[in-house]
Amino acid sequence: MGSPKTGQHVSFNAPRPFGHRLKSDMKETFFPDDPFRQFRNERGAIQRVKKGFQYFIPILEWFPKYNLNMFKYDLLAGITITSLAIPQGISYAKLAVLPPIIGLYSSFVPPLVYAVFGSSKHLAVGTVAACSLLISEIIGEVASPEEEPTLYLHLVFTATFITGIMQAALGFLRLGILVDFLSHSTILGFMGGTAVIISLQQLKGIFGLTHFTSKTDVYSVLHAVFSLRKEWKWQSAVVGIVFLVFLQFTRYLRNRNPKLFWVSAMAPMVTVIIGCLFAYFINGTQHGILTVGHLSKGINPLSVHFLNFDSKYLPAVVQAGLITGLVAMAEGIAIGRSFAIMKNEQIDGNKEMIAFGLMNIVGSFTSCYLTTGPFSKTAVNFNAGCRTAMSNLVMAIFMALTLLFLAPLFSYTPLVALSAIIMSAMLGLIKYEEMYHLLKVDKFDFCICMAAFLGVAFLSMDVGIMLSVGLALLRALLYMARPATCKLGKIPNSSLYRDVEQYPNATRAHGIMVLQLGSPIYYANSNYIRERIFRWVRDEQADPNYGSVEHVLLELSGVTSIDMTGIETLVEIRKSLQANGIQMGIVNPRIVVMEKMIASDFTNTIGKENIYLSVDEGVGRCRDLVPKLKQTETSPRSSNMTTMEQQV
Amino acid sequence: MGSPKTGQHVSFNAPRPFGHRLKSDMKETFFPDDPFRQFRNERGAIQRVKKGFQYFIPILEWFPKYNLNMFKYDLLAGITITSLAIPQGISYAKLAVLPPIIGLYSSFVPPLVYAVFGSSKHLAVGTVAACSLLISEIIGEVASPEEEPTLYLHLVFTATFITGIMQAALGFLRLGILVDFLSHSTILGFMGGTAVIISLQQLKGIFGLTHFTSKTDVYSVLHAVFSLRKEWKWQSAVVGIVFLVFLQFTRYLRNRNPKLFWVSAMAPMVTVIIGCLFAYFINGTQHGILTVGHLSKGINPLSVHFLNFDSKYLPAVVQAGLITGLVAMAEGIAIGRSFAIMKNEQIDGNKEMIAFGLMNIVGSFTSCYLTTGPFSKTAVNFNAGCRTAMSNLVMAIFMALTLLFLAPLFSYTPLVALSAIIMSAMLGLIKYEEMYHLLKVDKFDFCICMAAFLGVAFLSMDVGIMLSVGLALLRALLYMARPATCKLGKIPNSSLYRDVEQYPNATRAHGIMVLQLGSPIYYANSNYIRERIFRWVRDEQADPNYGSVEHVLLELSGVTSIDMTGIETLVEIRKSLQANGIQMGIVNPRIVVMEKMIASDFTNTIGKENIYLSVDEGVGRCRDLVPKLKQTETSPRSSNMTTMEQQV
Repeated sequence: MGSPKTGQHVSFNAPRPFGHRLKSDMKETFFPDDPFRQFRNERGAIQRVKKGFQYFIPILEWFPKYNLNMFKYDLLAGITITSLAIPQGISYAKLAVLPPIIGLYSSFVPPLVYAVFGSSKHLAVGTVAACSLLISEIIGEVASPEEEPTLYLHLVFTATFITGIMQAALGFLRLGILVDFLSHSTILGFMGGTAVIISLQQLKGIFGLTHFTSKTDVYSVLHAVFSLRKEWKWQSAVVGIVFLVFLQFTRYLRNRNPKLFWVSAMAPMVTVIIGCLFAYFINGTQHGILTVGHLSKGINPLSVHFLNFDSKYLPAVVQAGLITGLVAMAEGIAIGRSFAIMKNEQIDGNKEMIAFGLMNIVGSFTSCYLTTGPFSKTAVNFNAGCRTAMSNLVMAIFMALTLLFLAPLFSYTPLVALSAIIMSAMLGLIKYEEMYHLLKVDKFDFCICMAAFLGVAFLSMDVGIMLSVGLALLRALLYMARPATCKLGKIPNSSLYRDVEQYPNATRAHGIMVLQLGSPIYYANSNYIRERIFRWVRDEQADPNYGSVEHVLLELSGVTSIDMTGIETLVEIRKSLQANGIQMGIVNPRIVVMEKMIASDFTNTIGKENIYLSVDEGVGRCRDLVPKLKQTETSPRSSNMTTMEQQV
Repeated sequence: MGSPKTGQHVSFNAPRPFGHRLKSDMKETFFPDDPFRQFRNERGAIQRVKKGFQYFIPILEWFPKYNLNMFKYDLLAGITITSLAIPQGISYAKLAVLPPIIGLYSSFVPPLVYAVFGSSKHLAVGTVAACSLLISEIIGEVASPEEEPTLYLHLVFTATFITGIMQAALGFLRLGILVDFLSHSTILGFMGGTAVIISLQQLKGIFGLTHFTSKTDVYSVLHAVFSLRKEWKWQSAVVGIVFLVFLQFTRYLRNRNPKLFWVSAMAPMVTVIIGCLFAYFINGTQHGILTVGHLSKGINPLSVHFLNFDSKYLPAVVQAGLITGLVAMAEGIAIGRSFAIMKNEQIDGNKEMIAFGLMNIVGSFTSCYLTTGPFSKTAVNFNAGCRTAMSNLVMAIFMALTLLFLAPLFSYTPLVALSAIIMSAMLGLIKYEEMYHLLKVDKFDFCICMAAFLGVAFLSMDVGIMLSVGLALLRALLYMARPATCKLGKIPNSSLYRDVEQYPNATRAHGIMVLQLGSPIYYANSNYIRERIFRWVRDEQADPNYGSVEHVLLELSGVTSIDMTGIETLVEIRKSLQANGIQMGIVNPRIVVMEKMIASDFTNTIGKENIYLSVDEGVGRCRDLVPKLKQTETSPRSSNMTTMEQQV
């Protein structure tokens, strides 16, 4: 056991009690960020309750420290995002085939809720293009927005309610882990794909078409646009292209000089105002320029009594609520996180989910549809220098004023202006460079990204996202089922053992093979590991430079856990190796693995003296044993070898 | 870069070409056992073709070497398994609600096919109880076996055909990996659960009931048995209990003395013969002893023209084919493998699948239903000393003789005898001890096992197996999403760094924290890893014994792969740590990880001098740097620290 001369020993301590391990596992799974550490440091009960409230309601924490200087920044940021929220709200509501006023409502109540419960300082609340389209696609299958607009609207509120319940529940249950399974590559591809189809759909507005397909894939949309060539209105197209060029130019300015971010942030509002004036003065509707139409004054009416849980529509509504909720949450959390990293802060994904959930539940009661933290708005908020969630509050107040006094003015907004705004926003979401970078660095990640991109563009949005998530999971399972193994050799002039493929100058001791296993060993990969070890042994025996193998040392530092099947596999490997006259040793099992080995009595099966603390120690001991083995076992072993070669 | 004084360097070789890596990954995924190695060693084209045929048709390999001495053993084994095949065939066909003769047919053609294509020497082909019940459960939903027996029979043939196609296809596509996802715990629980419900179902036969529920769960079966109390036939029950005691006694004998295996192997046949004589002489049907009924002479009629692909039934048929096929395959391969290990041989899972597939395809053409390698028969075959697959051939020949001449005799077999045979076989499949062992060693594996056991017993067979597989996958995904990390310390008098929880005497250098990461780093766990690293840092800073952290070394030997999200996470971690005045170093990235780091330019971002070959080297370098840092950065760092504490 160990090499006593140097005082180093493998630790064979009794396993930690089950309760202790369970608690530790639960903590790692659900509370990896240790959210309750602030309570532990507090003494009095009142202090703890106060801390608890501050934890769940972040406004209680930051508002007492709030000052006028911070407010200056938040006011400016709030005004800037309001100017973006009005055109985006109207546009995305059109994308969801909802009355435009719903889009404005959605920028009033949800930001108020988020300002109270949200933990991010930079996130700006609003509706998002991809989810708006996704909602219309799923709900549109059970209720036509054109023929039954009231039913459709109520079902959208219900879907929003379900989204809210799901998000809040996931947050309370600390299941933020689910969002982790939407990889960056999936989101990149999904964003790109939706940007393509949403852009193409805007051709409807640009060409001033009135009838259009409700499908979203590239083929259907292009087919619809070109089969309706006779209805194209050139006036609309000219106006649309002018707006688009203007918007893209402001975007170009911002890219060249980031300080001009406000130019591109204000541009959509300018487009809307110019569009309104233009349509009003030339009497646009008579010249092929369609407008948004009547918008009534007043803030959000209650909609809680409209929630519709009719079993006829419920499956579609639940589907829409869950899928859009998950996508919106992933976008919101990813964006909040990336801005927090820029400022070296951290946000709590589970707390964010609760905030999103509450915001959507309250939203569904007050005539709003799905909101989250959209990328464009959040980036503008960040660049405008927001300091706290107060900027959302400012936006909500300005939005209320707009709803109360200015709403009717926006009824002149030309649809073509909205299309140009959406298209311009979408073109920025197709990140060619990032995709190319993926292709260069990781081909499989690129495939995952393309599955989402092409799936969304050519099949449908939910199929695309599921394909991509499925592919990512498949990859993860494959990694797990086929863990990397490698043969180690000794780096000259050191006691280090490293992969001989990576370090070709590493040398192998004669007759002793050291194999490093990675990843957990369990049922899904134990057969593979057995086959792979036998193959290493066979290959080494077939190699004229090395020949017979007398010892196999398995280096287990990288094995983070093991299950019953894994332990049994190790027993079987040992048995098969022994039948061929090869001794098996284990090097440096980690604590969890060692506990299982002790509990299952594997340590005694293999013999404690065959478990080593380091490869160097193991090789040393094996080398001492080799001559003895040579004398006693040469002939039977070599005949066994031949048998194994034939059988295998 | 490395410590030049000792000549050890981190390897920054250019990444291997993509094609090379892809080929290597494909090989590990689909050909881990390197099946084509025998061809590489052959010179001539003819030799290679010959080897190829021998590879795909194992009989070509072993038959030329076959001799009379081997045949003696195989003949004995063949006769023994035939005596088991007849009662089991009839019993399990009753379980699948098929005409008993189908069970006998299924022990004639499939063993012939397996003898040619199978690679296991010990596997005995036959029908299995669990799958028989599963077939009747699924197909019974679309076609009642009592009311439309012909349709039902044809659908069972079709399901068998689909099973065969699937098994062969999986084998050809080298997807043996799928079977790996049925863990030992799942199979243990599933076997136990089916044993319970099948045993309970035999109460029907024991009590001589004629009408019975078609459901399989414990509650329905017990309810049916007790609600029909008035129909209980005491004569049948007495006979049944006598047979059961006899069978259990032979089993007890065998357990006490393994050499008496033939007593328990012959016992079912003896039961059937005694049962037949008894029923014939006392004219059993008039005394409440129901018999099997008419069995016609003759070998398997063709059934290829009965295959029914009517779209009305196809979904159920495909479902039955796939689920039973997968379960049967898992059982067959697991059993073949475990006997091969006992004899220190190896079997090729993919080749076995092809053999099973061909056997079921041919079987479905010749009036057979699903066959695989059942545990009981294979164990008897092994104990009887079989040498090659010839024993299956012997069984097929004896079965053909039985079908041609003796079949009508078995029409007197009392149903109660069959029930006793099934019940006795099933009682041996509930492995209390193994389950208890699981509970002791691995609680989660025990839950997986219980999910299958209780799910099968109280819900339904397919729900039970899916629950268990789902739980096992969930565990695997959790492992992946929450990889173990630990803090390393130096073992006194060595250059080894080990987990400080496992080795409490390991000491940590002041200001330098070494963290070991395990498992691949990718999208599903990168957020967790970031949170976890920050928590380690916070905890260390909060610990009065250690205080400030100035260096964090990430030991990556256990990280077998990394994706784009993982690389980005490392960049972000470094950025956050640096903002707090902490330097990050990387220790010993493996070849795949290093290639990604180079491709994504991470090595230059972090600086090649911060990548070390060993922890000892890294700690040494950091220690040299500490004093310098101390002088220049003390005050800003400590203020940053406080900020981090508050923000986090």
